[in-house]
Amino acid sequence: MSPQAPELPLEPIESAEILAIGTELLMGQVTNTNASWLARRLAELGIVSYYQTVVGDNADRARRALETALGRADLVILTGGLGPTEDDISMAVASEVSQVPLRLNQAEWERIQGFFLRRGRRVSENNRKQALLPDPGVVLPNDNGTAPGAIMTTTRGGRLRYIMLLPGPPNENRPMFDRYARPLLEVRARHRLVSAYVRLTGIGESDAEQRLADLIHGQTNPTLASYCSTGEVAFRVTQYFADRDDNDQSPLDAMVAEIRRRFGDLVYEVGDRSLAQVVMDLLTTNGLTVATAESCTGGLLADAFVALPGASASFLGGIIAYDNRLKTSLLGLDPDLLAREGAVSEATALAMATAARERLGSDYALAVTGIAGPTGGTKEKPVGTVWIALASAAGTRARLLSLGGARTKIRETTVVYCLDLLRHALLERQHRTGFAEIKGTCS
Amino acid sequence: MSPQAPELPLEPIESAEILAIGTELLMGQVTNTNASWLARRLAELGIVSYYQTVVGDNADRARRALETALGRADLVILTGGLGPTEDDISMAVASEVSQVPLRLNQAEWERIQGFFLRRGRRVSENNRKQALLPDPGVVLPNDNGTAPGAIMTTTRGGRLRYIMLLPGPPNENRPMFDRYARPLLEVRARHRLVSAYVRLTGIGESDAEQRLADLIHGQTNPTLASYCSTGEVAFRVTQYFADRDDNDQSPLDAMVAEIRRRFGDLVYEVGDRSLAQVVMDLLTTNGLTVATAESCTGGLLADAFVALPGASASFLGGIIAYDNRLKTSLLGLDPDLLAREGAVSEATALAMATAARERLGSDYALAVTGIAGPTGGTKEKPVGTVWIALASAAGTRARLLSLGGARTKIRETTVVYCLDLLRHALLERQHRTGFAEIKGTCS
Repeated sequence: MSPQAPELPLEPIESAEILAIGTELLMGQVTNTNASWLARRLAELGIVSYYQTVVGDNADRARRALETALGRADLVILTGGLGPTEDDISMAVASEVSQVPLRLNQAEWERIQGFFLRRGRRVSENNRKQALLPDPGVVLPNDNGTAPGAIMTTTRGGRLRYIMLLPGPPNENRPMFDRYARPLLEVRARHRLVSAYVRLTGIGESDAEQRLADLIHGQTNPTLASYCSTGEVAFRVTQYFADRDDNDQSPLDAMVAEIRRRFGDLVYEVGDRSLAQVVMDLLTTNGLTVATAESCTGGLLADAFVALPGASASFLGGIIAYDNRLKTSLLGLDPDLLAREGAVSEATALAMATAARERLGSDYALAVTGIAGPTGGTKEKPVGTVWIALASAAGTRARLLSLGGARTKIRETTVVYCLDLLRHALLERQHRTGFAEIKGTCS
Repeated sequence: MSPQAPELPLEPIESAEILAIGTELLMGQVTNTNASWLARRLAELGIVSYYQTVVGDNADRARRALETALGRADLVILTGGLGPTEDDISMAVASEVSQVPLRLNQAEWERIQGFFLRRGRRVSENNRKQALLPDPGVVLPNDNGTAPGAIMTTTRGGRLRYIMLLPGPPNENRPMFDRYARPLLEVRARHRLVSAYVRLTGIGESDAEQRLADLIHGQTNPTLASYCSTGEVAFRVTQYFADRDDNDQSPLDAMVAEIRRRFGDLVYEVGDRSLAQVVMDLLTTNGLTVATAESCTGGLLADAFVALPGASASFLGGIIAYDNRLKTSLLGLDPDLLAREGAVSEATALAMATAARERLGSDYALAVTGIAGPTGGTKEKPVGTVWIALASAAGTRARLLSLGGARTKIRETTVVYCLDLLRHALLERQHRTGFAEIKGTCS
């Protein structure tokens, strides 16, 4: 599908609204993460958004909400309600409001049948409904489920309006938007915003903001905003281009360079890569391998690597020695050491890392032992006490973490610190061996 | 403050809308978790909700959105926009729309000054604005920040309407609602809803719905709705009580019992427990332990257990043999078997489970080996081909999965199937040994 999509008009899009359809949202069983995710994508495209709305699986209210949104915005994105059941009304409502008829799309109907066939399940007659698509209109393929999305057009107040339908499940909605919808919007957005993300670990949000206080107060274009997530801070630098064809990005590049200068190696990425991806790329490009030995993170650290496509190039495997006896039987730790120093101690973390590196035969091994709570804390070692360690040919090192929050937060933050410990070791190795500086791409 | 709050009228509340105010929501920098949290609370109170809306920090659009909501609902909850800055417009907008004046509340102004004093910070003149509160009206104290909330009333279409203002930060919003706002709503809510959730694995959403087609078509009270997530389907059964004091839940109980009858052991829970929690509870109450041997899930299966508080009672540990050599060195698999059958095969999965059970000393061991993609698939074993196996004292069993979707989906779905394989084995053991049937609580 070409971004121009000759079957879709090329009218400019300035504004958009996100209209989510689903009683589960009104009942509070599901949080509308699609709205924030899509809103961010729209902002990046320079498409402004003044309203978001949620209605239930009720055709009458959905129609009214869509009609209201079409009176205000060039593009209305409907999310949810594309399933096979009677509750799923979005396509029919959009067709009725836009007066664009639905017709059976034979190619999509065959794809849906194939989807079930490959899974050895019989296709239900209900699913045929999902192949009823707007004609004229654009079909947005679903690479992760049965429901295709679609774009159709209508006119309100003499202006062309676009209606886009996306499925509700985030793992279908997001790839569909990025692969198939975004290119169509890019060539239609009237203005243009270009953003770069500078990503940091090892510093808190307010500390990081204070180091950039002069830039934050003086911002006009580009603008500067900070976000924080578990163990990380990101700065978004956004330059606005009134003219889509203006390509002079030097104000944005200058601000990014200044932020990098102020934070040095705390910056792990200028671009979109996650910390785990950056570490994996450093390993892979240098032909190095890693293994893990985990206690309280219980697989979450290994998962950070294995979640990445192509992980097998650098991640060998891991041992989860959650029960203390396994620290002895699987990792060969000295029971006396465990008894003397405790399972959560510098000595145990170092011994786990060393043993994992030897037993799994990797260049690097990361180890974790800690108290994630809610129980198990003591006065000396409260919940949130975590030792992490790294073993390599250059020796071993350990770090004590004192983390706040509940079990999940403690485990997730620990993974970030482990990845960052390895990242710094890999950077040191590069500085020593004269490798290229950490790579980053602006997007 | 008494729940009756003599200063607040006692008109009944049937319907509510949540109106969030904040440009950060429209830009996608923040997800509107307040909406889902409050929506669930409202549903529990039997207050129905047909719309949720988000607008930015713009007085004109906020006024219009509030006016629209007041035309539809007895109660409008505004979240956000109660801060000290110029952007924070919610109280002024609510005052203007309701024609209830704001006056300096001396007690709240002193509390705000004290809040800063205790933190050694000077109070800004901006903060004085946060003590300007509706009079007449009810003040909702903020135990976790400076901005008090408020409730005021107005009239639309001859009916009394309530406007409630809550701060945006969830850690202020939620305690304020639960401690101070909910009691006021409880005595004013006209009806009552009670919901039970029946959770299933091992069946697709459309198949599951077809088995309940008669119940779905015939529903009046209780109502029946389905939801799906990775590898799971849930049915929500909701009974409506016109009279708050009516306690006869037998229609709801009867429908839940009928759903259980039709799905049998596919039902893993009637209540709020996750599948992992149900499996963990079955293990723990029977004094049994589990270990894991993972390849393509790479720690995600172990994490499903370790993420649960108290996991150490039943989860011993695991081996992540991502690299094939580790399947030999850590699990002792015969290299000839691997060469002959392939790493992704029934024989390998069974050998991994058996070895993990022996080497980790657990009652049960789950093993996974598969192709999560995006690369590594062949014609015979395409991406999504996964073998899972379970070893126990009763023997071993394996199951072939043919999964669709991207890497993350394949890995997450595999974990659900593994947990369910173990659940069925635990149920069979209970049936054999005459233990109690799977426990479930209605909520």
